[in-house]
Amino acid sequence: MGDDTNWTADPYELLRVHPGFRLSDQATDATPGFDGDKKAGARELSEGSSLLADLQEQLFACGRLGEPRSVLLVLQAMDTAGKGGIVSHVIGSMNPGGVHYAGFGKPTPEELAHDFLWRVWREVPAAGQVGVFDRSHYEDVLIGRVRKLATPEEIERRYGAIAAFENELAESGTAVVKVMLHLGKDEQKRRLASRLERPDKLWKFNPADVDERLLWDEYQEAYQIALERTNSLQAPWFVVPADHKWYARAAVQQLLIRAMQELHLEWPPPDYDIEEQKQRLAAS
Amino acid sequence: MGDDTNWTADPYELLRVHPGFRLSDQATDATPGFDGDKKAGARELSEGSSLLADLQEQLFACGRLGEPRSVLLVLQAMDTAGKGGIVSHVIGSMNPGGVHYAGFGKPTPEELAHDFLWRVWREVPAAGQVGVFDRSHYEDVLIGRVRKLATPEEIERRYGAIAAFENELAESGTAVVKVMLHLGKDEQKRRLASRLERPDKLWKFNPADVDERLLWDEYQEAYQIALERTNSLQAPWFVVPADHKWYARAAVQQLLIRAMQELHLEWPPPDYDIEEQKQRLAAS
Repeated sequence: MGDDTNWTADPYELLRVHPGFRLSDQATDATPGFDGDKKAGARELSEGSSLLADLQEQLFACGRLGEPRSVLLVLQAMDTAGKGGIVSHVIGSMNPGGVHYAGFGKPTPEELAHDFLWRVWREVPAAGQVGVFDRSHYEDVLIGRVRKLATPEEIERRYGAIAAFENELAESGTAVVKVMLHLGKDEQKRRLASRLERPDKLWKFNPADVDERLLWDEYQEAYQIALERTNSLQAPWFVVPADHKWYARAAVQQLLIRAMQELHLEWPPPDYDIEEQKQRLAAS
Repeated sequence: MGDDTNWTADPYELLRVHPGFRLSDQATDATPGFDGDKKAGARELSEGSSLLADLQEQLFACGRLGEPRSVLLVLQAMDTAGKGGIVSHVIGSMNPGGVHYAGFGKPTPEELAHDFLWRVWREVPAAGQVGVFDRSHYEDVLIGRVRKLATPEEIERRYGAIAAFENELAESGTAVVKVMLHLGKDEQKRRLASRLERPDKLWKFNPADVDERLLWDEYQEAYQIALERTNSLQAPWFVVPADHKWYARAAVQQLLIRAMQELHLEWPPPDYDIEEQKQRLAAS
């Protein structure tokens, strides 16, 4: 964050889940740490885009030269909270060649025939990549819990399995950033209703979204438990107020920038002799 | 293309490979069909971005609702010709959630233990996706031919195998757009040299690039043969002059826009009753 910013505090600190965190205490229409309006938010996002793209190029370069580091953004949210907009407007500023996007839908029969982490392992970012999980293994303790898709013992077991999985990722060089976009129930109603009014948005509406909405409180409770049980230093959770799309986008961008800055990336040194190559090139 | 454009002719027609095409006759520093400079090119690219993003969203929506259509951009070129810039600046304007990027490097032992198309099939775009091949199955008749990585009979066989593969893709709903970025030999020398001057570009330089450069004429001949043998109505080749990066980006963007417009996409109709869902939502 430069001098000329509307950020008054670092969202990486402000939005982080700490012990004693209560999801129900968090306002969904707030804009923590940001002193400005929608227009200012869009400007910050635009300015942050080139910084994020530069950091990604450096991460990619390091990966090409054999360094194991990568980044994984995990996106979780109730329907219409704006995951797609984060992917498009924040991740979209990076080079697609270094981004690995994975959307996790209803598991296939083959996926169900394996442990719940099987399909997730297949999509973790390689060295140098920025991975994005659009939904994730958390669905297995969210819809899994609410819809009783597994036994209570199995759900219970999964929190520990997730923590171990994410710890393994972090130890092998992946910076894990977990984001819950925190949407208000009324705002969701407005967004779903607007999808039903626009011919170009009808495809985004799914009657199942209303079914899930009817279980709103159960989902909030499942999120609360998941946040408590799987928050860690190596793989921290951030709860981002999401009623204002512009705020959520600018905030998630800052979270990624901070996480990548903490990797202290540098341009990798060449593994060849520069002068020798200049001579070869000149003679070619 | 609107009224207010610098395009004087459609690059989809101008840059297309036709019978009798000679690669060696094509200027690499030309800007066919474009009446304007670098600045105008950047403006066209910026204006085309939102149109391309809209077309992609529509393609994605159709895919979600069960239509089989997809797009595949195949990028081939000599080193430094600007494939990365196309991915970043043209593909980058689309939603990463609907893009499937695949870079093909030196085959792994597992890949070599299969037919050359095995690893390629695994990366073809799903319904609704825009796939991008950064290098491709063509390497198997380019470096494969120049470096004699397979017998002449096997290389010969592959042209037909590629044509059959691409025909299968086209018949199953994929619009295939094959682009050769056509770079001048002197321009490549300049670009390689500049990589050796900049600390933030040293990682992009690979001594093997000079080895390949020494085989420039053999590669041009291999391209000529590949273009002749695998050009088809269903999977056309376009040769894009690439000495001017701004031109190549704007031109490839136009090729994609045209290919997607020819799919005649429409917003898919809902598979639910709108009024019924409005009532359910209102009651929720």
